[in-house]
Amino acid sequence: MGSPAGFQNEIYLNGLGDVRPELPADLTVLERLAGERLAPAAYGYVAGAAGTESTARANREAFERRRLVPRMLRDVAVRDLSVRLLGQTLPVPLLLAPIGVLAIMHPDGDLAVARAAADLGVPLVVSTAASHSMEQAAEANAGGLRWFQLYWSSDRDVVVSFLTRASAAGYTTLVVTLDTHTLGWRPRDLDLAYLPFLRGIGVTNYFTDPAFQRAVGGPFDGDGADREAAIMRWAGTFGDPSLTWDDLAFLREHWDGPIMLKGIQHPDDARRAVDAGMDGVVVSNHGGRQVDGAIGSLDALPGVAAAVGDQITVLFDSGIRTGSDVIKALALGAKAVMLGRPYAYGLGLAGEAGVRHVIRCLLAELEIAMALVGVTCPAEITPELLTST
Amino acid sequence: MGSPAGFQNEIYLNGLGDVRPELPADLTVLERLAGERLAPAAYGYVAGAAGTESTARANREAFERRRLVPRMLRDVAVRDLSVRLLGQTLPVPLLLAPIGVLAIMHPDGDLAVARAAADLGVPLVVSTAASHSMEQAAEANAGGLRWFQLYWSSDRDVVVSFLTRASAAGYTTLVVTLDTHTLGWRPRDLDLAYLPFLRGIGVTNYFTDPAFQRAVGGPFDGDGADREAAIMRWAGTFGDPSLTWDDLAFLREHWDGPIMLKGIQHPDDARRAVDAGMDGVVVSNHGGRQVDGAIGSLDALPGVAAAVGDQITVLFDSGIRTGSDVIKALALGAKAVMLGRPYAYGLGLAGEAGVRHVIRCLLAELEIAMALVGVTCPAEITPELLTST
Amino acid sequence: MGSPAGFQNEIYLNGLGDVRPELPADLTVLERLAGERLAPAAYGYVAGAAGTESTARANREAFERRRLVPRMLRDVAVRDLSVRLLGQTLPVPLLLAPIGVLAIMHPDGDLAVARAAADLGVPLVVSTAASHSMEQAAEANAGGLRWFQLYWSSDRDVVVSFLTRASAAGYTTLVVTLDTHTLGWRPRDLDLAYLPFLRGIGVTNYFTDPAFQRAVGGPFDGDGADREAAIMRWAGTFGDPSLTWDDLAFLREHWDGPIMLKGIQHPDDARRAVDAGMDGVVVSNHGGRQVDGAIGSLDALPGVAAAVGDQITVLFDSGIRTGSDVIKALALGAKAVMLGRPYAYGLGLAGEAGVRHVIRCLLAELEIAMALVGVTCPAEITPELLTST
Amino acid sequence: MGSPAGFQNEIYLNGLGDVRPELPADLTVLERLAGERLAPAAYGYVAGAAGTESTARANREAFERRRLVPRMLRDVAVRDLSVRLLGQTLPVPLLLAPIGVLAIMHPDGDLAVARAAADLGVPLVVSTAASHSMEQAAEANAGGLRWFQLYWSSDRDVVVSFLTRASAAGYTTLVVTLDTHTLGWRPRDLDLAYLPFLRGIGVTNYFTDPAFQRAVGGPFDGDGADREAAIMRWAGTFGDPSLTWDDLAFLREHWDGPIMLKGIQHPDDARRAVDAGMDGVVVSNHGGRQVDGAIGSLDALPGVAAAVGDQITVLFDSGIRTGSDVIKALALGAKAVMLGRPYAYGLGLAGEAGVRHVIRCLLAELEIAMALVGVTCPAEITPELLTST
Repeated sequence: MGSPAGFQNEIYLNGLGDVRPELPADLTVLERLAGERLAPAAYGYVAGAAGTESTARANREAFERRRLVPRMLRDVAVRDLSVRLLGQTLPVPLLLAPIGVLAIMHPDGDLAVARAAADLGVPLVVSTAASHSMEQAAEANAGGLRWFQLYWSSDRDVVVSFLTRASAAGYTTLVVTLDTHTLGWRPRDLDLAYLPFLRGIGVTNYFTDPAFQRAVGGPFDGDGADREAAIMRWAGTFGDPSLTWDDLAFLREHWDGPIMLKGIQHPDDARRAVDAGMDGVVVSNHGGRQVDGAIGSLDALPGVAAAVGDQITVLFDSGIRTGSDVIKALALGAKAVMLGRPYAYGLGLAGEAGVRHVIRCLLAELEIAMALVGVTCPAEITPELLTST
Repeated sequence: MGSPAGFQNEIYLNGLGDVRPELPADLTVLERLAGERLAPAAYGYVAGAAGTESTARANREAFERRRLVPRMLRDVAVRDLSVRLLGQTLPVPLLLAPIGVLAIMHPDGDLAVARAAADLGVPLVVSTAASHSMEQAAEANAGGLRWFQLYWSSDRDVVVSFLTRASAAGYTTLVVTLDTHTLGWRPRDLDLAYLPFLRGIGVTNYFTDPAFQRAVGGPFDGDGADREAAIMRWAGTFGDPSLTWDDLAFLREHWDGPIMLKGIQHPDDARRAVDAGMDGVVVSNHGGRQVDGAIGSLDALPGVAAAVGDQITVLFDSGIRTGSDVIKALALGAKAVMLGRPYAYGLGLAGEAGVRHVIRCLLAELEIAMALVGVTCPAEITPELLTST
Repeated sequence: MGSPAGFQNEIYLNGLGDVRPELPADLTVLERLAGERLAPAAYGYVAGAAGTESTARANREAFERRRLVPRMLRDVAVRDLSVRLLGQTLPVPLLLAPIGVLAIMHPDGDLAVARAAADLGVPLVVSTAASHSMEQAAEANAGGLRWFQLYWSSDRDVVVSFLTRASAAGYTTLVVTLDTHTLGWRPRDLDLAYLPFLRGIGVTNYFTDPAFQRAVGGPFDGDGADREAAIMRWAGTFGDPSLTWDDLAFLREHWDGPIMLKGIQHPDDARRAVDAGMDGVVVSNHGGRQVDGAIGSLDALPGVAAAVGDQITVLFDSGIRTGSDVIKALALGAKAVMLGRPYAYGLGLAGEAGVRHVIRCLLAELEIAMALVGVTCPAEITPELLTST
Repeated sequence: MGSPAGFQNEIYLNGLGDVRPELPADLTVLERLAGERLAPAAYGYVAGAAGTESTARANREAFERRRLVPRMLRDVAVRDLSVRLLGQTLPVPLLLAPIGVLAIMHPDGDLAVARAAADLGVPLVVSTAASHSMEQAAEANAGGLRWFQLYWSSDRDVVVSFLTRASAAGYTTLVVTLDTHTLGWRPRDLDLAYLPFLRGIGVTNYFTDPAFQRAVGGPFDGDGADREAAIMRWAGTFGDPSLTWDDLAFLREHWDGPIMLKGIQHPDDARRAVDAGMDGVVVSNHGGRQVDGAIGSLDALPGVAAAVGDQITVLFDSGIRTGSDVIKALALGAKAVMLGRPYAYGLGLAGEAGVRHVIRCLLAELEIAMALVGVTCPAEITPELLTST
């Protein structure tokens, strides 16, 4: 990252040097490009959302309704984008959201993402359903800051195995996804015969888990009939719709670091997270992939932030596409945000270089936008920066 | 239906088994497909609405404005979608709305719908203007729960004949449509020369009615000149614009079961339904087919529900396309909803299999969405689940 | 018109008789058809509006925002659409708005419109800038009810001449257009070299006026150089931007019948019309043709209606396209409405038959919509029929 | 300009004379035409905005939401569009906004604009980044009223040099742009390799500045390697993000005339401008080119105007496209407005004639719209002319 204005300069120098970037600088264009260039099932898996995709649209509309009011003549020459949360210092108020099965976008999958994240100083959240094992991702992420995302299996041995592996592989923080105990109704996947594409690719992080293998009676041979049975078993034990707030104590027993609950949309649920001794919540609707017709995640953020105050850490996810989006989420109470689909499109379109492009563009745009609205660090981003129309 | 999560599993197993569904999983796509594949007059009859079709759009926009707020960590492993109303237990909070002239979509018409409804446990409402006689529909619906929809003819003998036949054929509940005493101004039908297409198909349920045949002097021969005269007489006596609240007593005299008034949009009319001793109302604007520029039916629901409280049963119709839509209607006070055009498109596109596809998708989506917003049964669906933007 | 339900039945019988109407039953489709089939300059003249045409869009949006709430079980078998205003009984609450230069749409121009209006019992407002003389229009309109619209020339002799001629030709009511003392900025006309098209067609009603001819030194020969000078003089004296409320006394001196002020959008101007002893106002923004970015005319109606109460007659113009639109305007305080562009499109597309089609469709739609919302006559149309979203 | 109604008449006479204008009369169409006819990098530079261009859209939507309410029968025969501000009389309440690098649109660049501005009596604001030197622009603008726009370099010698040159060349007023200390994230430019296009064209006004040349060691040879180094230095010293309100005193020392701060969007910043002894503010968001997701500039205007009252002069910029837009901005508190992109499109499409066309159309539209809403001069344009929907 180098200098305070490093993100900004890097891009502009490219421009001056006549190097046309391989991918567009407006990251909202990537979705269309991905739709044109990638395999339909792969593109559909990432771009798709629940039902009529109304929630995914609401996520973006919630950003559009809120507008920044720039302030002038504040000395913004020196910027510091770092944030301190959960006992850690993040270089930027941004993490890469957990996304499963990334290898459908590019064979380098999580490894490419992990390398780019480490190199550019952006924390990474590796998914339970990662295409590579979390140990491989950790190795590729050497020197980086990484968290682990848990899909809470109905098989408790599997849960413990994942937590143990994550801790051993240097994942500092646990992100428990609450909104996917049952898989959402996703027409793009259903229309393209859904999970079969997993066969040729797999959710390696899950399939190679020792506890999972014990449960299904050993490793898969890749093409055998037992593989289908394993997938069925995987689908069957993947989530646990019977979980309640009391079950969170189980996680505390098996995880020493901070625990974040991902998928919170209601203030009362945020308060229960405080009561349950959690370290924070991620206000997220899973990018609109779970419930059709749901509230835009940014619309849910202010209520959650007000409900918990400074008691626990609030992060935001679902709909971040631009630097200004990051500022808006921070102004409404998030300490940092997670970026999802855009880096997956970058991965699909140009591998690791694409992931790097997406991260660099977003951070440059964020740093420039912060300077232009008149703030030098995340702490100066307050609700006064925003208005609504 | 089998297990509580039966709807959901059925679909996913298809996915895992590499069986690509014949029709898309997003039911809002069916309208476009029907427009591409079906005869224009048939498609236009189902898809069309009154005037500029502004009311049909308002129906959908009313759903879009209301958003669900999912709740986390509630035990939703066991779901029960059944509802109890009018002395009956419905397996799901969904009925198939009455649609006339279904044979223009597929020659199996009401028989295909009746079979699918019985097989999947969804109550059926057979139309006065059905393409098959209500007796044939009842036979195809053996084992199913069925209601009868009445277009209140200006010939009282015809009315009594329909009520008598319905009772004899096992229809338990009467749904009186109030909003169609005069046929709406439907440009798609008018542009395609309207009713003539009925000649080759007929509204058999009406034409074969003994009282109607007595009134027109005997049965039709199918192509003769008297057939046209009969159509004219049918059109002339089809509705009765002179009816008032006092006339409802006549129905009570000739019908022993529950009576629902369909077409209510104003709270005062709902109160009058209570005063008239009716068993319930169906908040409906006939899918936007009667009055152009009218209120979206979902926007009318909260006022009606508040006006009648628990005194009578409130159902909802007009605009239901997704599982989340069902939840929204129930949250606003409906006990159950009616699904219309989507199953007619399914019928047109793939016959009985298409109807089954539509029902299965909607129920799967409903069950999944209920689980994901944190409820296990219709009674837990309350206004607190909703927010507006 | 015949029977109370005459408009409705007429159309349906056509449908039953397999006669497909030449033009679509949804009158909002006519604009697109006219754009496809008519000469660009002619179509542009009618379809065009001021500037970016934002006001024309606002006119329609104002209707869309207001929604009808239908009422059930009111005896609506017998309908009477007539209204009493300005000492006259209008058979329907609808007049044909004044439109100049109609011959650019069809050579029969005002004559075709006048014949259709008389035949269908719809009052007609003939324009100062009519393509035929008002005497010719009156002859074609024999038996009809007709008003005269005045563009108030800066040459008072011309004004007096028009009023004298109108009175002599049986025009009962004067409609003074206030919003066009200066011609609006209409890009479609400007881009197509504006007024030159008038040369081959002319505003005969104006050019043949004796006072105008005296002012320009005699009749035109149709193609001579003096014709261009006359057009220049016509353009120069067409309107008078110096007029004030005090000038209205001049009209009272030269006109015995009722006087309506057309172009009122502000309640204070409506009050001044009362103070000036006028008989009524037409709430109109000239179909959005004068000021870009102006208030939708229907949005201006409630304020005007409230300001004048029952002191004078309020009519509405600008944006009427459907029967439901008529009901909305009446619910907001208008006694009757004017219909503009749609009948001009009908004229352009099919001559007199096209005008008749438009009138018949609109009246049928109006009568049906009235029955379906539960009213039998204009007096029953009250604000309670409306809601907003 | 001649007669009070000069703008209006000029255009209409063209129309009557069968001269079809080379460019459309609806200036909002110019953007599309420019996109079709100009080089992508040139078009993209002018049309582009920050990020997803959401702020540019918000600029226009802010105008759409506010609507004019025309008033009738006010004597508007004599109009006077002049405004008095900053000790000067402007013939019209309009200035040409500063735009850099205009030569990418047409080789005549600033010279064509300066000539058209002088000829039509519209004040001109020449940019620090002009393609021609401000001395050349002044010469072409002989007889005109011209202001100078300053990008405040981090090299104070350069700042002083610009101010000294501007004063010597007859620029009366200084417009300091505050919102561009850091260049915005503009994807269209970034995607087209950004600044390289400047090489063949240059920002001559900057490159030929004596102080700048001293700083880089002499003049450029046009194609040498030192040119690239100079561009780098230019980019590096172009803005100064460390400036604060206290630095404004430095400008006062080196500039004798009025000083306007451009880029103000928040009332508190406007108050600080008063406190700092500035002469006025330009409410502007740089046409949406700096911060994505920001407030529409017109939405920011009322708050700023209320904050400063009559203490200093308020101008408006960002989104003006029509005469009605000018009226709306004046009604919300601006004394005059700046017009940007449209004249640059005019320049690109037809050189000086295109600039003249744009100015003439806008002024004609403004004068006509003023007459039609019932005002004769800018002072009569008050908030009462507006309503919101």
